[in-house]
Amino acid sequence: MTHEALLEQIKAKKSFLCVGLDVDKELISSELKSQPDSIFIFCKKIIEATAPYCVAYKPNIAFFEAYGLEGWKSLEKVMDFLNRNYPEIFTIADAKRADIGNTSMRYAKAYFEQFDFDSLTIAPYMGKDSVEPFLEYEDKYAILLALTSNEGASDFQMLDLEGKSLYEQVIEKSRKWDNSNRLMYVVGASRANALKEIRKLLPDSFLLIPGVGAQGGSLEDVAVQGLNDQCGLLVNSSRGIIYASTGSDFDQVARSVAKDLQTQMAFYLNKKGIV
Amino acid sequence: MTHEALLEQIKAKKSFLCVGLDVDKELISSELKSQPDSIFIFCKKIIEATAPYCVAYKPNIAFFEAYGLEGWKSLEKVMDFLNRNYPEIFTIADAKRADIGNTSMRYAKAYFEQFDFDSLTIAPYMGKDSVEPFLEYEDKYAILLALTSNEGASDFQMLDLEGKSLYEQVIEKSRKWDNSNRLMYVVGASRANALKEIRKLLPDSFLLIPGVGAQGGSLEDVAVQGLNDQCGLLVNSSRGIIYASTGSDFDQVARSVAKDLQTQMAFYLNKKGIV
Repeated sequence: MTHEALLEQIKAKKSFLCVGLDVDKELISSELKSQPDSIFIFCKKIIEATAPYCVAYKPNIAFFEAYGLEGWKSLEKVMDFLNRNYPEIFTIADAKRADIGNTSMRYAKAYFEQFDFDSLTIAPYMGKDSVEPFLEYEDKYAILLALTSNEGASDFQMLDLEGKSLYEQVIEKSRKWDNSNRLMYVVGASRANALKEIRKLLPDSFLLIPGVGAQGGSLEDVAVQGLNDQCGLLVNSSRGIIYASTGSDFDQVARSVAKDLQTQMAFYLNKKGIV
Repeated sequence: MTHEALLEQIKAKKSFLCVGLDVDKELISSELKSQPDSIFIFCKKIIEATAPYCVAYKPNIAFFEAYGLEGWKSLEKVMDFLNRNYPEIFTIADAKRADIGNTSMRYAKAYFEQFDFDSLTIAPYMGKDSVEPFLEYEDKYAILLALTSNEGASDFQMLDLEGKSLYEQVIEKSRKWDNSNRLMYVVGASRANALKEIRKLLPDSFLLIPGVGAQGGSLEDVAVQGLNDQCGLLVNSSRGIIYASTGSDFDQVARSVAKDLQTQMAFYLNKKGIV
């Protein structure tokens, strides 16, 4: 997907919402749980209910991997369903991959070719040659971890690495890599103060912001500090939407929460003059 | 697997060789390629040929992921074959996972429960709470990336992070985490000088050393700098063994290369008084 197509959709839906698909069978409504292929059916119902209000879906690959072959089959069906019925929606494989070059190539093949995701989250620890294979695909994006929302972000990311914090080094160095226009960045919603500074370093890039809702981030802070003239944000909510109800009305409640978030997002997009 | 059982096997086989299973269908002998389930058959033949000379197998998960469902089915069969026939051999899922806690738990479930691997490689960027879920499993190990063999290691890992290099910080901090006795560390074979210093920081830990062979590391340097009194090393070779021949004699040539490496390893183990 091109940047332009993504922006077009953001304007059309007045939303920069990403819905995270972290499917835990224990939290699926009991009548659904007993059905074969409950993971796929759950995702399908969530997608049908929330698609008018969001511009991206982010399957969390670990949750599919944990169910073994069954999980992979479900992921394949989810992606097939999304790509057939909602080709305009941006898809993110939240997988946090990266390895030496010849191995990263394989991960790129798995997510960009086999599953036809638009993007993949990437861990930066192994540096340039572990990330560049993901940047060779036109209209596909590598979403690099910069500053994450979890407590452990303070262990390494926020420490001073030769005059800048590690996450700033990750951002600055990565801008010089080949095809860096295909990079986006993960910044946790709980880091709104840092977000202001990060936006200065990355005036034009899309930032994927997880952690609104269950992880405690505020949408207002994120929108105020993070929006640029082309939106430049994808704000993710997973548990806050998909498990807002664990009863049989889960999809309708998910729709309602997504709609609320979209309404708030429309306000910030409007204020910024984007819509 | 316990540390003791691993050491026992090292002594019995006079080897600390790990064989990496990076299965690329393009490099499989042509008569095998046309068979259904060629990935599994290739691995089975490699395992049967090399098992007397190695103490660990390391499926590189990206290579299986790249083949989609077929790849996952093959991985399941490979692990089933290994766990049934060679329960004494240590297994490493080379997957370089890690995410926020509730997601890392899923990866742990996938690799330690579904596939029953003994260990999993882990990326440290997200810090303590992204790694600890992997350390909750008794007799399972998280193998943390410290200093990798690729060029990009110099981008972040080798820079100075508040008085120490980032990889030294990763090592030192991680020693204080809960159940840190279940941590092992990845150190690239091309980093033999650093290995000497790393051994001082980690006198008792097992180090997984990739990069001997195709990536240019020397076994002698690694053995001299890295062996401790309990061996403490697993040296991996992937392409150098499994594609030593791409003809129909691939398994016999793999056996011969593995045997050569084992002979060299026996010499270093003997010199160190371990066998």
